[in-house]
Parts: sequence; structure tokens; C-alpha cells
Amino acid sequence: MAVQPKTPKESLTILTDLVLPGETNPLDNLFGGELLARMDRASSIAARRHCKRIVVTASVNHVAFTKAVPVGSVLTIEAKVSRAFKSSMEIFVDVWIEDRETGEKSKVNEGIYTFVAVNDMGTPVSVPPILPETDLEKERYDGALRRKQLSLVLAKKLDPHDATELKALFI
Amino acid sequence: MAVQPKTPKESLTILTDLVLPGETNPLDNLFGGELLARMDRASSIAARRHCKRIVVTASVNHVAFTKAVPVGSVLTIEAKVSRAFKSSMEIFVDVWIEDRETGEKSKVNEGIYTFVAVNDMGTPVSVPPILPETDLEKERYDGALRRKQLSLVLAKKLDPHDATELKALFI
Amino acid sequence: MAVQPKTPKESLTILTDLVLPGETNPLDNLFGGELLARMDRASSIAARRHCKRIVVTASVNHVAFTKAVPVGSVLTIEAKVSRAFKSSMEIFVDVWIEDRETGEKSKVNEGIYTFVAVNDMGTPVSVPPILPETDLEKERYDGALRRKQLSLVLAKKLDPHDATELKALFI
Amino acid sequence: MAVQPKTPKESLTILTDLVLPGETNPLDNLFGGELLARMDRASSIAARRHCKRIVVTASVNHVAFTKAVPVGSVLTIEAKVSRAFKSSMEIFVDVWIEDRETGEKSKVNEGIYTFVAVNDMGTPVSVPPILPETDLEKERYDGALRRKQLSLVLAKKLDPHDATELKALFI
Amino acid sequence: MAVQPKTPKESLTILTDLVLPGETNPLDNLFGGELLARMDRASSIAARRHCKRIVVTASVNHVAFTKAVPVGSVLTIEAKVSRAFKSSMEIFVDVWIEDRETGEKSKVNEGIYTFVAVNDMGTPVSVPPILPETDLEKERYDGALRRKQLSLVLAKKLDPHDATELKALFI
Amino acid sequence: MAVQPKTPKESLTILTDLVLPGETNPLDNLFGGELLARMDRASSIAARRHCKRIVVTASVNHVAFTKAVPVGSVLTIEAKVSRAFKSSMEIFVDVWIEDRETGEKSKVNEGIYTFVAVNDMGTPVSVPPILPETDLEKERYDGALRRKQLSLVLAKKLDPHDATELKALFI
Repeated sequence: MAVQPKTPKESLTILTDLVLPGETNPLDNLFGGELLARMDRASSIAARRHCKRIVVTASVNHVAFTKAVPVGSVLTIEAKVSRAFKSSMEIFVDVWIEDRETGEKSKVNEGIYTFVAVNDMGTPVSVPPILPETDLEKERYDGALRRKQLSLVLAKKLDPHDATELKALFI
Repeated sequence: MAVQPKTPKESLTILTDLVLPGETNPLDNLFGGELLARMDRASSIAARRHCKRIVVTASVNHVAFTKAVPVGSVLTIEAKVSRAFKSSMEIFVDVWIEDRETGEKSKVNEGIYTFVAVNDMGTPVSVPPILPETDLEKERYDGALRRKQLSLVLAKKLDPHDATELKALFI
Repeated sequence: MAVQPKTPKESLTILTDLVLPGETNPLDNLFGGELLARMDRASSIAARRHCKRIVVTASVNHVAFTKAVPVGSVLTIEAKVSRAFKSSMEIFVDVWIEDRETGEKSKVNEGIYTFVAVNDMGTPVSVPPILPETDLEKERYDGALRRKQLSLVLAKKLDPHDATELKALFI
Repeated sequence: MAVQPKTPKESLTILTDLVLPGETNPLDNLFGGELLARMDRASSIAARRHCKRIVVTASVNHVAFTKAVPVGSVLTIEAKVSRAFKSSMEIFVDVWIEDRETGEKSKVNEGIYTFVAVNDMGTPVSVPPILPETDLEKERYDGALRRKQLSLVLAKKLDPHDATELKALFI
Repeated sequence: MAVQPKTPKESLTILTDLVLPGETNPLDNLFGGELLARMDRASSIAARRHCKRIVVTASVNHVAFTKAVPVGSVLTIEAKVSRAFKSSMEIFVDVWIEDRETGEKSKVNEGIYTFVAVNDMGTPVSVPPILPETDLEKERYDGALRRKQLSLVLAKKLDPHDATELKALFI
Repeated sequence: MAVQPKTPKESLTILTDLVLPGETNPLDNLFGGELLARMDRASSIAARRHCKRIVVTASVNHVAFTKAVPVGSVLTIEAKVSRAFKSSMEIFVDVWIEDRETGEKSKVNEGIYTFVAVNDMGTPVSVPPILPETDLEKERYDGALRRKQLSLVLAKKLDPHDATELKALFI
């Protein structure tokens, strides 16, 4: 029996919280490591909402810090499953801060995490497929296969010449 | 005047600490996010030891979680600068736990972080080059250029066909 | 010049996060105090989104804990401004957990906080009025005046006989 | 066999601690939420000292923040059971800071919490009655019944016209 | 003009708080390090209450852990200045837990800390003398001089033969 | 069968980490108590590496704070077993900070902790002896016996006249 696919929206997880003084670096901005931890928690909830199983972090594929996050900021993290493979899920995480006086939002960070669904013994279990809806969701869905091949190449578990999707980028 | 290159060993940073009960997931293992934060702090110290400047996290290029870290573990993080570019530095982070009774170490995690050196105003400043010594340091040094091109391609700041080092992998 | 009223929806703040093992009581449920702190942070963001000023907690009017929150739960806090007075805002906070396997949500807690908008010197400043839209928002808007009178009566700053809205309940 | 009543003094709990930099808001004062958490812990100890059972937070009835608490303050929280009902206890919490140079104390906050005594299964169990001694204890004891009726009215579990103690205030 | 002496009681500081699950070791008891930190905070408040100045930890002279503190315990720390020297103060810290069902207290730990009073620049300033009242306070007052000599001997700042009070113990 | 002695070097534990803003006192330096907690964790790992058993803090014999540790510092803690007795181990802890611009290290703190090896029931078990190698290790090894006698004298478990090693210092 085929498992019913789910949309990215069904796993949408929003974590809005303040940046407290105890989480800052010498420039009074949020520590990179603290942001990585919050993104990991939001991603894990999105993964869990998609598969209804216990999930564990498998890898952080890419996180780019494009703008500093000053202490006292209101920080909003949005995480959604972008693609599901056999037992793993790729999660896209977008991070914004908003100007207190104008309310204007600006993107500070974007990250890609991979989680694996496991049973109580820690053994991987299969997860439902993803059916992307919006253009952005479709673009991220397509990119996910290239990123998966890239991870395997970097981990030396896949020969670059067999990474067909990835290879196509360069030829 | 040319800046004197430095070896990776000069930036070696060791962070050995316990995994406390408040940092664990429902399987009683260390949370992925908490480990990412510790790795970020160790990496930032290695970057700072290399360049003697304030440093900020620019990106997390890849972190793979290969083995769970149970509560109560002694966790050792070793971070070293693998390559320096104009104002950015790539840091390799290796993570081990050790068996309490045998003392045997096992690798649980490996990650690559990029930091940028900045002045008090947050403006990037140049950093000394790296002179790798061991075979592993040389391998990581060589790979760093490919990873940098990859980041630029993924961020759409570099055309895949101009990513010469990376392209060579696939052709 | 009249200040443009705003809707409760414009201040909606969602804080979804995990309940970590370090935040639990001897029954392995989330500590009441930790939940109060999370609700305060979410409320303060909603208040700030409404008035675009610095805000400080003035009082917690009522928080009822109706159901325990087990460790590992995904906890969702939703805060919205229910009514604005001269410089104070009443915030309604609803708290849910969701069943991991079915995804079903259950209400665990409801709270009412009051925040005051201040300038950089800590002096109260005026805030925009609220225009409730849904039935629930209207009901909470109406109740807010009675609750404000009640607070003043309890603080002995208002004679019970002058608390007209409140008095009407009992006669 | 009648249970021996206890005095409020027998449950007196004092929590004196510093306000650390990691617990402050953008005005460098203690966060409301952090103070609520400390008050909850002190109250829970007072409730437990009264009934010698596991206790869980049932509600926060009222907390008024009358004065900001600057970072570095010595903060003293005093909690005492003000009245006991069948299985619930009302706790009054008074909060002071003291001037470092003069040692003078000033009240910053006052709160009322309700706890319920439970057995290991989380089922409510009965608690000893309270015998107030001082004038303030007697005043708080008398007010507790009105506050209990108020909670029931607000939760729509009691018709306002049956809240005899409360109603008397307004007529 | 002579400075008015103060009694130990005037500096008495009580810190009663719960032992949370996030602060425990693999045997589910409170971590030694966490207890040391709480004792340091309580001691620093006692020192500050005595001298009305900023105080900094100078040394921990002795802390003996005589009994494990299980998670969920109510832990009471009492700190009092035992003797004051020119700008330093010795603080005695006694630590108890209480049995939840019987309310019986048992001593788990005792420690001796030394603090120095400083001005805003961090320069030591003089503090009022101590006038012990009870027998225990007198015994601790007398022992403080021996302990001070011992610290100086251990730090090689005093020749053992000049440590007259200490020497008398052994001859 | 005799247990093989071990060298102090085999237990060497290095904990390099940043001083975060949430851990500082009103002079913006690291709190004494927070440093004590980090030293305790590093010491416990050194003790555990020596004996391969669960270890618990028995006492803190002496910690001297010789220099303030400003926020943002890179703090390095090095812990090594200095001597082993029947089931207890004395650990020496040295603490440095390094100047960001010159990289120069300066000693800020030195401490002596005692740990006891226990089995799963918390009962003390025997540990291997220590074979000091360097001059400093030998000096600390020799001093450990005097310090042990001193602890026993202070705890009134040993008559000063029987503390032969200690007595020799003064005669």
C-alpha cells in the first residue's frame, strides 16, 4: 500500500523568540552556535511533524550567516520539509529578524538540515514522500537530490561520475 | 610585506567536556543542536588563535553525525584551521567520545565551519595564510578550495563552469 | 491625529519549541515556572509587534495549568494582543501540545499577561487601540475591561463600587 | 481523625540570589519571565513544606511587577502558604531587592500562586488546613476564598451569583 | 574613626531552591560543580551584605561533600561572614537537604570561601570587623586566622615558622 | 596482583572554551562560581580517565583566584591527577587566559580537587597509583599527602600530632 504524500506546508514550524543577552558574542550579536541549536530544534519538529516518528539529526548540509543578529532582536525561524527520501528528510530553514520600529523583516540566515526517522531502538524507518506546491518548494525539492549526491560524494560514499544530477551542473 | 604563514597546529583547540542530562533528546543522546553550538565555539577559538582578531561565523559547510553521543559521555572536540583565504578561514572539527572502561576513542562527528576575521566595526580584515604539515592537513587544505567554490555555486555567486577545481571532480 | 487601530492578528506570535529534559519536575513534566517564562517571552513579542516600542511586563493576570506537559513534547505558544488601553496591552496566550503519532493538538494552558510600552527612559508611552475581528477576539476584548477593573480593585486602586463593568457581573 | 493545622510560618521559603546578566531585557533589568520562574520554584517549595507531598502548579492568580530589577541586584523571594483548601494551596510570594550601599529593601513584586498536592500517579490528595497567625496572614487567608471564587467565575465553573464572598465586595 | 563592627547574623543569606534534572551527574545526584557555583553566589551576597561594596571571589578554602544530593531535592544554603580582615572576608557556608515526607534536614556539605571587597576599579577597600555572637560563630572566628595563615603558607607567601596560630596546633 | 601505576599525563584533560556574557559579574568578569563549576567538570574527567570508574567530588581543597577573567576571554583549563590514594584522587587544575592579539598566556587560577571512585551503587572502589614524571608533578605528588592530612585535621578526623608530614613543616 502506497504511503500518502504530504505537502511541505503540513510540516511548517515557526519558532519566534527573543535574543537574550546571555547568548551573544563580543560584538553583542547572537552567537553562531546558539542560532545553529535553535535551527536544529525547529528542524527536528518539522521533520517529526512530517513523519510522526522520533527523528535524529543526520547532517547539517549548509548554513550561511548573511547578517548579524543583535541582542534584543525578535528572531523568527521557519522550518519546512523540502524533500523526503527513504528514511531521511531534508529540511529548509529560513531565519528573519524584524525591525522593532518599522516591523520590516530581513533575512539573516538560511540553512539545510537532514534528519532521519528512527524507531525506539534507533533503527531507521521509512517516511512519507513530499509533494511540493509553491515554486520555491519545487525548486528546493529539485535541488535536494543534487545536495544528497553531494553529501555522498563528500563522504566518499558515491563516485563523482555516478552523481548524475550533480554532474549535469558542470557539463 | 608578506604575512608569515602559520601551521594548522598553531590553532589547535581542544574542548573536552561532559554531556549533561539537560542537553539530551528523547533517546537520551546529546541533541544535535547542542553539539553544533559546542563545535562552533571551539572553531571560533581556533580561528581567533590563527588570526588574532575578532571572528564571526560565516557558514557551516558540512557536519555529519555518524554516531549518537549518550548522556554522561566525555566528549572531545578538536578544531584546527585547514585553510585561510583573504579574510575567511575554513576550520575542520573532529569529535570523539571515549569508552569509560576501556578508554577507547570513537569518532562521532566531523564538521567544517567557515569564519571571517573582522575589526571592531565588523568589517572583514585579512588573515595569515596556512602552511599544512601532515598528510591529513594537506588533504584538507586541497579540499578547501573545492568546498569554497561549492559554497559560491550553491549561493549562486559563481557560475558552475568557472568552478574549475570542483568541475575537475566530475569530468 | 487619531492613531490607526490594529487587529489582534497583526500581533500574532507563534513560539513552537521542544520541552528539554533540563526543564522538568519530579514527574518528568515541564516545570510551571519554565512555561511561565516562555509565555512571557512570546507575550512580550506580541506586545512589541503591536506598539513598536520597548515593552515591560506589568502583571500576570491569570494562568491556568490544565494539563501536564511531558518531556519531549512539542509545545506551541500563541500570543495575541486582546485589548489595548492608554499605554498598557492585555495579551492572551494559548498553549498546546501535539501527539507525536496522531498529530492531534490538546490545550494545556491559557494565560493573560499585561505589558506596558515604555520609551528608552522607561516612561510609559501611548499605544494604538485594538480592533477585534473574530468572535473569540471580541469576547476577549470585552472581558479585558472587567479584568482591568479587577486588577485595580485587587490592588486597592479602585473602589469596588466604581468597577461598573465588574459589578454588573454580580448584580 | 482530624489533620493538625499548620501555620504559614512553617512553610516559609526564602530564595536569595543574584540577578545575572544572562537574565535581563534590553533595559538591563530582570526579565519578567525569569522572575515568574523563580517565584514558581520558591512557591512550590513552600507548598511542599506545608503538605509533604509532590506538588504541581495549578494557576498563577496574580503577579504585579511594580518596580524594575536591575542586573546585579540581590533579589529575595519569600513564599508562604496563605490558605489551604481540599487539595490545593494558595501561596503568597513577596519579592524585594536591597540597595547595595544602604542595605535598604524595596518591594518589587508580589504574586499569588496556586499549587495542588498529588500522589505519584498525579492524582490530587488532601492537605492540612492553615492557621494564620499575624494580621497580614489573616488578611491574606480571608482574601483567599474570594480569589478562589474569582478563579472559578473566570473559568466559568461558578455562577457569579453563587460567589457569595466575592459578590459581597460589590453590593 | 573606628568602623562599627557587625555581627555574622547581619550578613546571613539563605538560598533555598530545587535541584533540577539538568544539573545532575550519571548517578542522578547534583553535580559538585553546580553546588560550588550556588555556594559562591550565596557567599558573595553574604560578603556584600557585610561590607556594602562590590565583592569578588578570592579563594575557596575548603568544601567537603559529605552526602549526595538527589535530583528533586530542596536544597538550602546558608552563608554568613565568619571573620573580616583588612579587605577580605571569610564566609562559612552550610548546606542542607530536607526529606520531603518527614521534613527532616540533613547536612550535605560545608564550605569556606574568601571574598575581597573592591571599588569600581577593582582595587581592594577596607571592610568592617566581625563581632561573633554564638559559640559556633566564635569557634569559626577563631579558626579563620589559622586558615588565613594556612592559605598564605600554601601560597608560599608566609614562612611556616611565622604562622604562629597554625604552628600552635602541631606543637 | 599489583595494579599498574599510571602517569599524571595519561589523565590530562584540556577544556578550552569562551567566557560568555551570561556568566559574568557586575565588573564584567567571569563569576567565581561558574569557574569553579568548569574546573569541577574538567577535574572529574581527569579522575575518570585515571581510574575508568564513575567518580564523585569529595572536596575542593583550595582554589585561588589570582586574576580576573574578562567576558569574551578564551579560557583554558588543564586538569591532571597529582596523586592517588586508596579510592580517592587529588587533581591539580591550572587555568589560563590568552591575550587575543599577542596570544600570550597568563595564569588566572589554580585549584585542587579531590574525587572518589565509586561503583554503580555509590560505594568507593580502589584506584591505580600515580607515578609522577616531571619535577612539577613530583612536587605536587609530595604535597598531596600533606594536604590530605590537613583535610583530615580540619575535619577533626586526625589528631594534629599524628599528621606527621604536615607537622614537619612547622618544626
